[in-house]
Amino acid sequence: MPTRTDPPGHPFDAATQLDPVAAGRWRGRTSPAYANMVGPFGGVTAAAALAAVWRHPARQGEPISLTVNFAGPVADGEFEVEAEPVRTNRSTQHWLVQLRQGADVVATATAVLATRRETWSSVEAGFPAAPPADEVARMPPLDRVRWTSAYEMRFVAGAPLVAPPEADADSVSLLWVRDAPPRALDFLSLAALCDVFFPRLFVRRPRWVPIGTVSFTVYFHADSATLARIGTAHVLGHARAHQFRNGYFDQAAEIWGPGGELLAVTHQIVYFKE
Amino acid sequence: MPTRTDPPGHPFDAATQLDPVAAGRWRGRTSPAYANMVGPFGGVTAAAALAAVWRHPARQGEPISLTVNFAGPVADGEFEVEAEPVRTNRSTQHWLVQLRQGADVVATATAVLATRRETWSSVEAGFPAAPPADEVARMPPLDRVRWTSAYEMRFVAGAPLVAPPEADADSVSLLWVRDAPPRALDFLSLAALCDVFFPRLFVRRPRWVPIGTVSFTVYFHADSATLARIGTAHVLGHARAHQFRNGYFDQAAEIWGPGGELLAVTHQIVYFKE
Repeated sequence: MPTRTDPPGHPFDAATQLDPVAAGRWRGRTSPAYANMVGPFGGVTAAAALAAVWRHPARQGEPISLTVNFAGPVADGEFEVEAEPVRTNRSTQHWLVQLRQGADVVATATAVLATRRETWSSVEAGFPAAPPADEVARMPPLDRVRWTSAYEMRFVAGAPLVAPPEADADSVSLLWVRDAPPRALDFLSLAALCDVFFPRLFVRRPRWVPIGTVSFTVYFHADSATLARIGTAHVLGHARAHQFRNGYFDQAAEIWGPGGELLAVTHQIVYFKE
Repeated sequence: MPTRTDPPGHPFDAATQLDPVAAGRWRGRTSPAYANMVGPFGGVTAAAALAAVWRHPARQGEPISLTVNFAGPVADGEFEVEAEPVRTNRSTQHWLVQLRQGADVVATATAVLATRRETWSSVEAGFPAAPPADEVARMPPLDRVRWTSAYEMRFVAGAPLVAPPEADADSVSLLWVRDAPPRALDFLSLAALCDVFFPRLFVRRPRWVPIGTVSFTVYFHADSATLARIGTAHVLGHARAHQFRNGYFDQAAEIWGPGGELLAVTHQIVYFKE
Protein backbone atom coordinates (compact mmCIF):
# COMPACT_ATOMS: atom_id res chain seq x y z
CA MET A 1 0.00 0.00 0.00
CA PRO A 2 1.51 3.36 -0.98
CA THR A 3 2.34 5.87 1.73
CA ARG A 4 0.00 8.84 1.61
CA THR A 5 2.02 12.08 1.77
CA ASP A 6 -0.61 14.62 0.69
CA PRO A 7 -3.81 15.33 2.59
CA PRO A 8 -6.94 14.38 0.67
CA GLY A 9 -8.43 16.89 -1.78
CA HIS A 10 -6.96 18.82 -4.68
CA PRO A 11 -3.13 18.93 -4.80
CA PHE A 12 -3.29 22.75 -4.92
CA ASP A 13 -5.18 22.84 -1.62
CA ALA A 14 -2.58 20.55 -0.10
CA ALA A 15 0.26 22.71 -1.44
CA THR A 16 -1.24 25.89 0.04
CA GLN A 17 -2.43 24.37 3.31
CA LEU A 18 -1.28 26.37 6.34
CA ASP A 19 -1.42 25.18 9.93
CA PRO A 20 -1.69 27.88 12.61
CA VAL A 21 1.38 28.25 14.85
CA ALA A 22 0.50 31.49 16.67
CA ALA A 23 -1.53 34.65 15.95
CA GLY A 24 -0.61 35.62 12.37
CA ARG A 25 1.94 32.78 12.05
CA TRP A 26 1.43 29.62 10.06
CA ARG A 27 3.37 26.56 9.01
CA GLY A 28 3.26 25.33 5.41
CA ARG A 29 5.20 22.75 3.45
CA THR A 30 6.34 22.38 -0.11
CA SER A 31 4.50 19.83 -2.22
CA PRO A 32 6.15 17.33 -4.58
CA ALA A 33 3.29 17.93 -7.05
CA TYR A 34 4.52 21.53 -7.53
CA ALA A 35 8.27 20.88 -7.56
CA ASN A 36 10.33 23.09 -9.86
CA MET A 37 13.86 22.36 -11.06
CA VAL A 38 15.05 23.60 -7.65
CA GLY A 39 12.52 24.04 -4.82
CA PRO A 40 8.81 24.70 -5.41
CA PHE A 41 7.04 26.47 -8.29
CA GLY A 42 7.05 30.19 -7.36
CA GLY A 43 3.34 30.58 -8.07
CA VAL A 44 2.51 28.22 -5.23
CA THR A 45 4.87 30.05 -2.87
CA ALA A 46 3.09 33.30 -3.81
CA ALA A 47 -0.27 31.60 -3.19
CA ALA A 48 0.92 30.46 0.25
CA ALA A 49 1.91 34.06 1.10
CA LEU A 50 -1.53 35.26 0.02
CA ALA A 51 -3.18 32.36 1.91
CA ALA A 52 -1.71 33.66 5.19
CA VAL A 53 -3.49 36.96 4.54
CA TRP A 54 -6.67 35.42 3.17
CA ARG A 55 -7.13 33.11 6.17
CA HIS A 56 -6.15 35.70 8.79
CA PRO A 57 -9.05 36.54 11.13
CA ALA A 58 -8.38 40.30 10.72
CA ARG A 59 -8.69 40.10 6.92
CA GLN A 60 -11.03 42.68 5.42
CA GLY A 61 -11.94 42.75 1.71
CA GLU A 62 -10.56 40.95 -1.32
CA PRO A 63 -7.10 41.12 -2.94
CA ILE A 64 -6.26 44.13 -5.12
CA SER A 65 -2.50 43.69 -5.34
CA LEU A 66 0.14 41.19 -4.28
CA THR A 67 3.90 41.54 -4.61
CA VAL A 68 6.20 38.66 -3.70
CA ASN A 69 9.98 39.02 -3.62
CA PHE A 70 11.81 35.70 -3.80
CA ALA A 71 14.74 36.34 -1.47
CA GLY A 72 16.46 32.97 -1.69
CA PRO A 73 15.92 29.34 -2.64
CA VAL A 74 13.03 27.59 -0.86
CA ALA A 75 14.22 24.18 0.35
CA ASP A 76 11.84 21.22 0.06
CA GLY A 77 10.06 20.82 3.39
CA GLU A 78 8.42 23.08 5.96
CA PHE A 79 8.34 26.87 6.00
CA GLU A 80 6.79 29.46 8.29
CA VAL A 81 4.64 32.36 7.10
CA GLU A 82 3.99 35.47 9.15
CA ALA A 83 1.31 37.94 8.02
CA GLU A 84 0.83 41.33 9.65
CA PRO A 85 -1.95 43.84 8.87
CA VAL A 86 0.07 47.07 9.07
CA ARG A 87 -2.82 49.40 8.26
CA THR A 88 -6.58 49.01 7.99
CA ASN A 89 -8.57 51.86 6.43
CA ARG A 90 -12.27 52.11 5.76
CA SER A 91 -12.09 50.30 2.40
CA THR A 92 -8.46 49.10 2.11
CA GLN A 93 -6.08 47.00 4.17
CA HIS A 94 -2.28 46.75 3.84
CA TRP A 95 -0.28 43.65 4.74
CA LEU A 96 3.35 42.63 5.20
CA VAL A 97 4.21 38.95 4.87
CA GLN A 98 7.46 37.06 5.44
CA LEU A 99 8.25 33.42 4.66
CA ARG A 100 11.10 31.86 6.61
CA GLN A 101 12.94 28.56 6.76
CA GLY A 102 14.89 28.45 10.02
CA ALA A 103 16.60 31.82 10.40
CA ASP A 104 16.48 32.61 6.66
CA VAL A 105 13.91 34.87 5.03
CA VAL A 106 13.08 33.04 1.79
CA ALA A 107 10.39 35.45 0.56
CA THR A 108 8.77 38.73 1.51
CA ALA A 109 5.39 39.90 0.29
CA THR A 110 3.06 42.84 0.52
CA ALA A 111 -0.64 42.72 -0.24
CA VAL A 112 -3.44 45.25 -0.48
CA LEU A 113 -7.05 44.18 0.05
CA ALA A 114 -10.09 46.31 -0.65
CA THR A 115 -13.84 46.38 -0.47
CA ARG A 116 -15.02 47.39 -3.93
CA ARG A 117 -18.02 49.43 -4.98
CA GLU A 118 -19.64 49.42 -8.39
CA THR A 119 -18.30 52.26 -10.59
CA TRP A 120 -17.90 53.20 -14.21
CA SER A 121 -15.80 50.39 -15.69
CA SER A 122 -14.03 49.79 -18.99
CA VAL A 123 -11.67 47.15 -20.38
CA GLU A 124 -9.13 48.99 -22.48
CA ALA A 125 -6.76 46.12 -23.35
CA GLY A 126 -7.87 43.86 -26.19
CA PHE A 127 -8.99 40.28 -25.53
CA PRO A 128 -6.45 38.19 -27.47
CA ALA A 129 -7.78 36.27 -30.49
CA ALA A 130 -7.47 32.53 -29.87
CA PRO A 131 -9.22 29.35 -31.01
CA PRO A 132 -11.37 27.71 -28.28
CA ALA A 133 -9.41 25.76 -25.64
CA ASP A 134 -10.74 22.39 -26.80
CA GLU A 135 -9.28 22.98 -30.27
CA VAL A 136 -5.74 23.50 -28.96
CA ALA A 137 -3.52 20.54 -28.04
CA ARG A 138 -2.30 20.16 -24.44
CA MET A 139 1.46 20.54 -24.03
CA PRO A 140 2.92 17.34 -22.58
CA PRO A 141 4.26 17.98 -19.07
CA LEU A 142 8.05 18.45 -18.90
CA ASP A 143 9.79 15.61 -17.05
CA ARG A 144 12.32 17.81 -15.28
CA VAL A 145 9.72 20.36 -14.11
CA ARG A 146 7.14 18.47 -12.09
CA TRP A 147 4.76 21.42 -11.60
CA THR A 148 4.01 21.39 -15.34
CA SER A 149 1.91 18.27 -14.62
CA ALA A 150 -0.25 20.34 -12.27
CA TYR A 151 -1.52 22.54 -15.11
CA GLU A 152 -3.31 21.83 -18.35
CA MET A 153 -1.48 24.18 -20.75
CA ARG A 154 -2.69 24.59 -24.31
CA PHE A 155 -0.31 26.87 -26.22
CA VAL A 156 -1.69 28.90 -29.10
CA ALA A 157 1.73 30.58 -29.53
CA GLY A 158 5.09 30.86 -27.78
CA ALA A 159 5.54 27.41 -26.22
CA PRO A 160 8.83 27.26 -24.31
CA LEU A 161 11.99 25.43 -25.34
CA VAL A 162 11.04 25.14 -28.99
CA ALA A 163 13.48 26.52 -31.56
CA PRO A 164 12.30 29.95 -32.71
CA PRO A 165 11.33 30.06 -36.38
CA GLU A 166 13.59 33.04 -36.99
CA ALA A 167 16.42 34.84 -35.24
CA ASP A 168 14.38 37.90 -34.32
CA ALA A 169 11.35 36.02 -32.95
CA ASP A 170 9.63 37.68 -29.99
CA SER A 171 8.89 36.13 -26.59
CA VAL A 172 5.08 36.40 -26.73
CA SER A 173 3.13 33.41 -25.37
CA LEU A 174 -0.60 32.85 -25.62
CA LEU A 175 -2.15 29.83 -23.92
CA TRP A 176 -5.29 28.40 -22.43
CA VAL A 177 -4.56 27.08 -18.96
CA ARG A 178 -6.24 25.64 -15.88
CA ASP A 179 -5.36 23.47 -12.91
CA ALA A 180 -4.89 19.74 -13.57
CA PRO A 181 -7.07 18.12 -12.39
CA PRO A 182 -9.56 20.99 -12.86
CA ARG A 183 -10.30 23.06 -9.73
CA ALA A 184 -12.68 26.05 -9.37
CA LEU A 185 -10.74 29.30 -9.69
CA ASP A 186 -10.18 31.39 -6.54
CA PHE A 187 -7.77 34.18 -5.56
CA LEU A 188 -5.07 31.74 -4.48
CA SER A 189 -5.11 29.71 -7.69
CA LEU A 190 -5.34 32.90 -9.77
CA ALA A 191 -2.19 34.21 -8.04
CA ALA A 192 -0.41 30.95 -8.86
CA LEU A 193 -1.67 31.00 -12.47
CA CYS A 194 -0.06 34.43 -12.86
CA ASP A 195 3.33 32.70 -12.53
CA VAL A 196 2.49 29.82 -14.87
CA PHE A 197 4.17 31.41 -17.87
CA PHE A 198 7.59 29.97 -18.53
CA PRO A 199 10.52 32.35 -18.35
CA ARG A 200 10.38 34.55 -21.46
CA LEU A 201 14.03 33.65 -22.07
CA PHE A 202 12.99 30.02 -22.67
CA VAL A 203 10.67 31.18 -25.45
CA ARG A 204 13.23 33.50 -27.02
CA ARG A 205 16.35 31.34 -26.45
CA PRO A 206 15.19 27.74 -26.15
CA ARG A 207 17.75 26.16 -23.85
CA TRP A 208 17.95 25.55 -20.10
CA VAL A 209 19.97 28.09 -18.11
CA PRO A 210 19.87 29.01 -14.39
CA ILE A 211 16.93 31.34 -13.91
CA GLY A 212 14.72 32.66 -11.09
CA THR A 213 12.01 35.25 -10.50
CA VAL A 214 13.16 37.93 -8.05
CA SER A 215 9.98 40.04 -7.82
CA PHE A 216 6.43 39.17 -8.85
CA THR A 217 3.31 41.35 -8.76
CA VAL A 218 -0.36 40.60 -9.39
CA TYR A 219 -3.08 43.21 -9.78
CA PHE A 220 -6.44 41.53 -9.27
CA HIS A 221 -9.20 42.97 -11.45
CA ALA A 222 -11.67 40.16 -10.68
CA ASP A 223 -13.77 39.87 -7.56
CA SER A 224 -14.86 36.58 -6.02
CA ALA A 225 -18.22 36.61 -7.86
CA THR A 226 -16.41 36.80 -11.23
CA LEU A 227 -14.05 33.99 -10.23
CA ALA A 228 -17.00 31.82 -9.14
CA ARG A 229 -18.64 32.31 -12.55
CA ILE A 230 -15.50 31.04 -14.28
CA GLY A 231 -15.27 27.95 -12.12
CA THR A 232 -13.15 25.25 -13.75
CA ALA A 233 -13.10 26.76 -17.25
CA HIS A 234 -9.76 27.41 -18.96
CA VAL A 235 -8.43 30.96 -18.71
CA LEU A 236 -6.41 32.65 -21.44
CA GLY A 237 -2.92 33.85 -20.58
CA HIS A 238 -0.86 36.30 -22.62
CA ALA A 239 2.76 37.11 -21.71
CA ARG A 240 5.62 39.06 -23.21
CA ALA A 241 8.92 40.70 -22.22
CA HIS A 242 9.93 44.32 -22.65
CA GLN A 243 13.67 43.85 -22.25
CA PHE A 244 16.41 41.34 -21.42
CA ARG A 245 19.48 43.14 -20.08
CA ASN A 246 22.60 42.13 -18.16
CA GLY A 247 21.15 39.28 -16.17
CA TYR A 248 17.54 40.40 -15.75
CA PHE A 249 14.42 40.50 -17.90
CA ASP A 250 10.89 41.62 -17.17
CA GLN A 251 7.62 39.89 -18.04
CA ALA A 252 4.20 41.53 -18.47
CA ALA A 253 1.16 39.27 -18.64
CA GLU A 254 -2.61 39.15 -18.46
CA ILE A 255 -5.04 36.43 -17.43
CA TRP A 256 -8.43 36.57 -19.18
CA GLY A 257 -11.64 34.68 -18.54
CA PRO A 258 -13.09 32.78 -21.51
CA GLY A 259 -15.77 35.44 -21.98
CA GLY A 260 -13.24 38.28 -22.29
CA GLU A 261 -13.13 39.27 -18.60
CA LEU A 262 -9.68 40.63 -17.68
CA LEU A 263 -9.11 38.82 -14.38
CA ALA A 264 -5.56 39.88 -13.51
CA VAL A 265 -2.57 41.79 -14.81
CA THR A 266 0.80 40.51 -13.64
CA HIS A 267 4.47 41.45 -13.89
CA GLN A 268 7.75 39.98 -12.84
CA ILE A 269 11.47 40.60 -13.09
CA VAL A 270 13.62 37.53 -13.50
CA TYR A 271 17.30 36.78 -13.00
CA PHE A 272 19.05 34.73 -15.67
CA LYS A 273 22.56 33.45 -16.20
CA GLU A 274 23.90 33.24 -19.73
CA MET B 1 14.68 88.87 3.48
CA PRO B 2 12.71 85.70 2.69
CA THR B 3 12.86 82.80 5.13
CA ARG B 4 14.77 79.89 3.64
CA THR B 5 12.79 76.66 4.15
CA ASP B 6 14.59 74.34 1.71
CA PRO B 7 18.25 73.39 1.95
CA PRO B 8 20.31 74.74 -0.95
CA GLY B 9 20.52 72.66 -4.13
CA HIS B 10 17.90 71.12 -6.39
CA PRO B 11 14.35 70.92 -4.96
CA PHE B 12 14.33 67.15 -5.62
CA ASP B 13 17.39 66.69 -3.40
CA ALA B 14 15.69 68.70 -0.66
CA ALA B 15 12.48 66.65 -1.04
CA THR B 16 14.37 63.34 -0.71
CA GLN B 17 16.82 64.46 1.97
CA LEU B 18 16.94 62.06 4.92
CA ASP B 19 18.55 62.77 8.27
CA PRO B 20 19.80 59.76 10.24
CA VAL B 21 17.86 59.03 13.46
CA ALA B 22 19.34 55.61 14.32
CA ALA B 23 20.82 52.63 12.45
CA GLY B 24 18.52 52.10 9.44
CA ARG B 25 16.13 54.88 10.56
CA TRP B 26 15.87 58.29 8.96
CA ARG B 27 13.76 61.41 9.19
CA GLY B 28 12.45 63.10 6.05
CA ARG B 29 9.95 65.86 5.39
CA THR B 30 7.47 66.64 2.66
CA SER B 31 8.38 69.49 0.33
CA PRO B 32 5.97 72.23 -0.82
CA ALA B 33 7.60 72.04 -4.29
CA TYR B 34 6.17 68.50 -4.70
CA ALA B 35 2.75 69.04 -3.12
CA ASN B 36 -0.12 67.08 -4.66
CA MET B 37 -3.83 67.86 -4.21
CA VAL B 38 -3.58 66.18 -0.80
CA GLY B 39 -0.12 65.47 0.67
CA PRO B 40 3.00 64.97 -1.45
CA PHE B 41 3.41 63.62 -5.01
CA GLY B 42 3.68 59.83 -4.63
CA GLY B 43 6.78 59.63 -6.82
CA VAL B 44 8.75 61.63 -4.27
CA THR B 45 7.49 59.44 -1.42
CA ALA B 46 8.65 56.39 -3.42
CA ALA B 47 12.02 58.09 -3.99
CA ALA B 48 12.35 58.74 -0.23
CA ALA B 49 11.69 55.04 0.46
CA LEU B 50 14.37 54.08 -2.06
CA ALA B 51 16.73 56.74 -0.64
CA ALA B 52 16.66 55.01 2.76
CA VAL B 53 17.94 51.85 1.04
CA TRP B 54 20.34 53.64 -1.31
CA ARG B 55 22.04 55.55 1.52
CA HIS B 56 22.12 52.62 3.96
CA PRO B 57 25.70 51.57 4.79
CA ALA B 58 24.81 47.88 4.21
CA ARG B 59 23.57 48.58 0.67
CA GLN B 60 25.03 46.27 -1.97
CA GLY B 61 24.37 46.72 -5.70
CA GLU B 62 21.92 48.84 -7.66
CA PRO B 63 18.11 48.78 -7.74
CA ILE B 64 16.38 46.06 -9.78
CA SER B 65 12.86 46.44 -8.40
CA LEU B 66 10.94 48.71 -6.04
CA THR B 67 7.35 48.30 -4.87
CA VAL B 68 5.70 50.98 -2.76
CA ASN B 69 2.26 50.50 -1.20
CA PHE B 70 0.61 53.76 -0.19
CA ALA B 71 -1.14 52.74 3.01
CA GLY B 72 -2.70 56.06 3.94
CA PRO B 73 -2.50 59.80 3.34
CA VAL B 74 0.91 61.39 4.01
CA ALA B 75 0.40 64.59 6.02
CA ASP B 76 2.54 67.61 5.21
CA GLY B 77 5.54 67.64 7.54
CA GLU B 78 7.99 65.11 8.89
CA PHE B 79 7.99 61.35 8.42
CA GLU B 80 10.26 58.54 9.53
CA VAL B 81 11.67 55.87 7.21
CA GLU B 82 13.01 52.54 8.42
CA ALA B 83 14.93 50.31 5.99
CA GLU B 84 15.93 46.74 6.83
CA PRO B 85 18.08 44.44 4.68
CA VAL B 86 16.24 41.15 5.27
CA ARG B 87 18.49 39.03 3.06
CA THR B 88 21.83 39.54 1.35
CA ASN B 89 22.93 36.99 -1.23
CA ARG B 90 26.05 36.92 -3.38
CA SER B 91 24.57 39.14 -6.12
CA THR B 92 21.17 40.27 -4.76
CA GLN B 93 19.89 42.03 -1.66
CA HIS B 94 16.28 42.20 -0.38
CA TRP B 95 14.90 45.12 1.64
CA LEU B 96 11.80 45.96 3.67
CA VAL B 97 10.98 49.64 4.17
CA GLN B 98 8.29 51.34 6.26
CA LEU B 99 7.34 55.04 6.33
CA ARG B 100 5.58 56.25 9.44
CA GLN B 101 4.04 59.45 10.75
CA GLY B 102 3.57 59.08 14.49
CA ALA B 103 2.07 55.63 15.09
CA ASP B 104 0.65 55.35 11.57
CA VAL B 105 2.28 53.39 8.76
CA VAL B 106 1.78 55.66 5.72
CA ALA B 107 3.68 53.50 3.22
CA THR B 108 5.45 50.16 2.99
CA ALA B 109 8.02 49.26 0.38
CA THR B 110 10.16 46.36 -0.74
CA ALA B 111 13.24 46.68 -2.89
CA VAL B 112 15.64 44.28 -4.57
CA LEU B 113 19.17 45.38 -5.42
CA ALA B 114 21.64 43.44 -7.55
CA THR B 115 25.12 43.45 -8.91
CA ARG B 116 24.80 42.93 -12.65
CA ARG B 117 27.07 41.12 -15.09
CA GLU B 118 27.15 41.61 -18.83
CA THR B 119 24.95 39.05 -20.63
CA TRP B 120 23.10 38.57 -23.88
CA SER B 121 20.67 41.48 -24.01
CA SER B 122 17.73 42.46 -26.20
CA VAL B 123 15.09 45.19 -26.18
CA GLU B 124 11.87 43.56 -27.29
CA ALA B 125 9.44 46.45 -26.76
CA GLY B 126 9.36 49.09 -29.48
CA PHE B 127 10.75 52.60 -28.87
CA PRO B 128 7.70 54.84 -29.35
CA ALA B 129 7.76 57.16 -32.36
CA ALA B 130 7.82 60.80 -31.20
CA PRO B 131 9.06 64.13 -32.52
CA PRO B 132 12.17 65.46 -30.71
CA ALA B 133 11.49 67.00 -27.27
CA ASP B 134 12.33 70.54 -28.42
CA GLU B 135 9.60 70.37 -31.05
CA VAL B 136 6.86 69.58 -28.49
CA ALA B 137 5.28 72.35 -26.39
CA ARG B 138 5.62 72.23 -22.61
CA MET B 139 2.34 71.69 -20.75
CA PRO B 140 1.68 74.65 -18.44
CA PRO B 141 1.84 73.51 -14.79
CA LEU B 142 -1.56 72.92 -13.17
CA ASP B 143 -2.32 75.44 -10.41
CA ARG B 144 -3.99 72.96 -8.08
CA VAL B 145 -1.22 70.36 -8.39
CA ARG B 146 2.01 72.05 -7.37
CA TRP B 147 4.32 69.13 -8.28
CA THR B 148 3.49 69.64 -11.95
CA SER B 149 5.78 72.73 -11.75
CA ALA B 150 8.65 70.42 -10.76
CA TYR B 151 8.60 68.63 -14.13
CA GLU B 152 8.94 69.79 -17.71
CA MET B 153 6.24 67.74 -19.43
CA ARG B 154 5.91 67.82 -23.22
CA PHE B 155 2.91 65.74 -24.27
CA VAL B 156 2.94 64.14 -27.71
CA ALA B 157 -0.39 62.44 -26.92
CA GLY B 158 -2.77 61.87 -24.03
CA ALA B 159 -2.45 65.05 -21.97
CA PRO B 160 -4.70 64.86 -18.91
CA LEU B 161 -7.95 66.70 -18.32
CA VAL B 162 -8.55 67.49 -21.98
CA ALA B 163 -11.85 66.39 -23.49
CA PRO B 164 -11.32 63.16 -25.45
CA PRO B 165 -11.92 63.56 -29.18
CA GLU B 166 -14.32 60.61 -29.22
CA ALA B 167 -16.23 58.53 -26.70
CA ASP B 168 -14.10 55.42 -27.12
CA ALA B 169 -10.72 57.20 -26.83
CA ASP B 170 -7.99 55.24 -25.07
CA SER B 171 -5.91 56.35 -22.09
CA VAL B 172 -2.49 56.22 -23.78
CA SER B 173 -0.09 59.06 -22.94
CA LEU B 174 3.24 59.75 -24.63
CA LEU B 175 5.42 62.57 -23.32
CA TRP B 176 8.95 63.88 -23.05
CA VAL B 177 9.70 64.70 -19.43
CA ARG B 178 12.54 65.79 -17.13
CA ASP B 179 12.99 67.54 -13.80
CA ALA B 180 12.39 71.31 -13.75
CA PRO B 181 14.92 72.81 -13.34
CA PRO B 182 16.92 70.07 -15.13
CA ARG B 183 18.80 67.65 -12.88
CA ALA B 184 21.04 64.72 -13.87
CA LEU B 185 19.05 61.47 -13.81
CA ASP B 186 19.74 58.98 -10.99
CA PHE B 187 17.85 56.03 -9.50
CA LEU B 188 15.89 58.23 -7.11
CA SER B 189 14.69 60.66 -9.77
CA LEU B 190 13.97 57.78 -12.17
CA ALA B 191 11.75 56.17 -9.50
CA ALA B 192 9.88 59.46 -9.10
CA LEU B 193 9.57 59.91 -12.88
CA CYS B 194 7.85 56.52 -13.03
CA ASP B 195 4.94 58.11 -11.14
CA VAL B 196 4.84 61.29 -13.24
CA PHE B 197 2.04 60.04 -15.49
CA PHE B 198 -1.30 61.46 -14.51
CA PRO B 199 -4.00 59.00 -13.49
CA ARG B 200 -5.16 57.22 -16.65
CA LEU B 201 -8.72 58.08 -15.60
CA PHE B 202 -7.91 61.79 -16.10
CA VAL B 203 -6.94 61.06 -19.70
CA ARG B 204 -9.98 58.90 -20.38
CA ARG B 205 -12.54 60.87 -18.32
CA PRO B 206 -11.27 64.43 -18.07
CA ARG B 207 -12.65 65.64 -14.72
CA TRP B 208 -11.31 65.76 -11.17
CA VAL B 209 -12.42 62.91 -8.90
CA PRO B 210 -10.85 61.53 -5.69
CA ILE B 211 -8.04 59.23 -6.75
CA GLY B 212 -4.91 57.65 -5.25
CA THR B 213 -2.26 55.08 -6.13
CA VAL B 214 -2.40 52.07 -3.80
CA SER B 215 0.53 50.03 -5.14
CA PHE B 216 3.39 51.14 -7.41
CA THR B 217 6.22 49.04 -8.86
CA VAL B 218 9.35 49.97 -10.81
CA TYR B 219 11.62 47.50 -12.60
CA PHE B 220 14.95 49.18 -13.27
CA HIS B 221 16.54 48.11 -16.54
CA ALA B 222 19.18 50.87 -16.47
CA ASP B 223 22.39 50.80 -14.47
CA SER B 224 24.10 53.91 -13.09
CA ALA B 225 26.42 54.21 -16.12
CA THR B 226 23.40 54.40 -18.45
CA LEU B 227 21.72 56.99 -16.23
CA ALA B 228 24.93 59.08 -16.16
CA ARG B 229 25.04 59.09 -19.98
CA ILE B 230 21.50 60.46 -20.12
CA GLY B 231 22.25 63.25 -17.65
CA THR B 232 19.71 66.07 -17.92
CA ALA B 233 18.21 65.02 -21.29
CA HIS B 234 14.46 64.52 -21.57
CA VAL B 235 13.24 60.94 -21.26
CA LEU B 236 10.24 59.56 -23.15
CA GLY B 237 7.37 58.18 -21.11
CA HIS B 238 4.58 55.95 -22.44
CA ALA B 239 1.63 54.93 -20.26
CA ARG B 240 -1.66 53.11 -20.73
CA ALA B 241 -4.32 51.27 -18.71
CA HIS B 242 -5.52 47.70 -19.16
CA GLN B 243 -8.76 48.02 -17.22
CA PHE B 244 -10.87 50.30 -15.04
CA ARG B 245 -13.18 48.27 -12.82
CA ASN B 246 -15.23 48.93 -9.70
CA GLY B 247 -13.03 51.55 -8.11
CA TYR B 248 -9.58 50.48 -9.33
CA PHE B 249 -7.60 50.75 -12.54
CA ASP B 250 -4.10 49.65 -13.46
CA GLN B 251 -1.43 51.57 -15.33
CA ALA B 252 1.49 50.10 -17.32
CA ALA B 253 4.26 52.44 -18.41
CA GLU B 254 7.79 52.63 -19.75
CA ILE B 255 10.52 55.27 -19.45
CA TRP B 256 12.88 55.44 -22.42
CA GLY B 257 16.15 57.31 -22.89
CA PRO B 258 16.32 59.62 -25.92
CA GLY B 259 18.54 57.12 -27.76
CA GLY B 260 16.01 54.28 -27.41
CA GLU B 261 17.37 52.83 -24.13
CA LEU B 262 14.53 51.25 -22.09
CA LEU B 263 15.40 52.60 -18.61
CA ALA B 264 12.47 51.35 -16.53
CA VAL B 265 9.14 49.55 -16.76
CA THR B 266 6.58 50.57 -14.17
CA HIS B 267 3.09 49.57 -13.05
CA GLN B 268 0.56 50.80 -10.58
CA ILE B 269 -2.95 50.12 -9.38
CA VAL B 270 -5.01 53.14 -8.50
CA TYR B 271 -8.15 53.73 -6.47
CA PHE B 272 -10.76 56.07 -7.92
CA LYS B 273 -14.16 57.30 -6.81
CA GLU B 274 -16.82 57.91 -9.43
